[in-house]
Amino acid sequence: MSLVPLCSDLPQFLQGYLPNATKKETSIRPFITLTYAQSLDARISKGPGIRTTISHPETKTMTHYLRYHHDGILIGSGTALIDDPGLNCKWGRDSLANSPRPIILDTKQKWRFGGSKMQELYNKGLGKPPIVVVANDPAIKEHHVEYAICPMDKATKQIDWEKLFEKLKKDFNIQSVMIEGGAKVVNQLLLRNDIINSLIITIGSTFLGRSGTEVSPLQSVNLKGITWWKGTTDVVMCAKLDNE
Amino acid sequence: MSLVPLCSDLPQFLQGYLPNATKKETSIRPFITLTYAQSLDARISKGPGIRTTISHPETKTMTHYLRYHHDGILIGSGTALIDDPGLNCKWGRDSLANSPRPIILDTKQKWRFGGSKMQELYNKGLGKPPIVVVANDPAIKEHHVEYAICPMDKATKQIDWEKLFEKLKKDFNIQSVMIEGGAKVVNQLLLRNDIINSLIITIGSTFLGRSGTEVSPLQSVNLKGITWWKGTTDVVMCAKLDNE
Repeated sequence: MSLVPLCSDLPQFLQGYLPNATKKETSIRPFITLTYAQSLDARISKGPGIRTTISHPETKTMTHYLRYHHDGILIGSGTALIDDPGLNCKWGRDSLANSPRPIILDTKQKWRFGGSKMQELYNKGLGKPPIVVVANDPAIKEHHVEYAICPMDKATKQIDWEKLFEKLKKDFNIQSVMIEGGAKVVNQLLLRNDIINSLIITIGSTFLGRSGTEVSPLQSVNLKGITWWKGTTDVVMCAKLDNE
Repeated sequence: MSLVPLCSDLPQFLQGYLPNATKKETSIRPFITLTYAQSLDARISKGPGIRTTISHPETKTMTHYLRYHHDGILIGSGTALIDDPGLNCKWGRDSLANSPRPIILDTKQKWRFGGSKMQELYNKGLGKPPIVVVANDPAIKEHHVEYAICPMDKATKQIDWEKLFEKLKKDFNIQSVMIEGGAKVVNQLLLRNDIINSLIITIGSTFLGRSGTEVSPLQSVNLKGITWWKGTTDVVMCAKLDNE
């Protein structure tokens, strides 16, 4: 399925919120963009495994434009297993060159590259092979997949996000990561103003209803540097997480 | 506290979503506008009783402009008890003439006009006295308050919204009602495309967090006639509930 053209005012709107390709990043971590599309009632899908249309085709094109600007695209294994997304970049002429590396957060080691949409795109030369973030070195390694052992915070037994992103830069030369979901990953990272550089949220003009999968962080979160774009039926907000 | 000026493009933006003051309404029910302000994570407050700033002063002015255009303003008694809102209209020169009639949905008969902010404004000539929607004729009637017995749907034991709005028009000459909350009322009425004429939602660029009071209808809801307005930090969506 091909994309509709990119709205002409989107590149300028997004500019201040994208990794700077020409400026050498000196941080030990990549530039991190948190991005997702939600309904008015803050649902990113009608429920687990239900493919849900939230946004207009023009904001779908924007997603591919964002992918074009990032080295890596990270999702949780729940989303990878349920949605089987391609995660490649259809914007521009060369999907292979333009696509980010898929990064699958799979500490329970349930996801397989074999048989996935990602593998199909890779085999067709339309996407890159994934980095799979695992708890332990897997007994059987899949062809074309690279593995990263997930750094854990010993005190909280949660993912050590800082160290994970440092590793992705140091070991895989990932200079920028776009995080696309799912809700579990997004809700955790909305609280990490020390890590997230940009927030780009599309809001579609629909209600998915109470049983949908919700994005809402555990605590309140303030934003700064807020700017909105108005599409045909959706809006897009760019912002930075506030440090206060 | 006085209002900031109304943004000059708001009247035109809102025009198609307001009751038409010049056209005689022939429906047996008033024109009904459902309106509220929410955070990105679809919370209308941080929690019960916590006064929460969601929107920019310019969208607060819009709320008063909306009040100016309606005969009545309906809220649930939960909101009335917890927030003690004034519900008058500060837009324009004559608050008494411009203010809608407060309509308090109080079937449990817990709210009192005496000692409320509404009474204070009424006593100062800055607001109208309320209509209180009750389950039974109250033993003690408060001065200046009018009472309406709430029509109930015998099968579901829920409020019969159709009959309630018919009564407000027939018995109180209320030609238009603006519904401002709380979440319980809004969540019910988002499912009533047979009753609601307009939907006007302000989205503030903040996250109130998971323990906040949420707006999300029980089922998914589609919209039509969607249009967005972009403010300094907020967006406003006007739409109609779809009939499908």
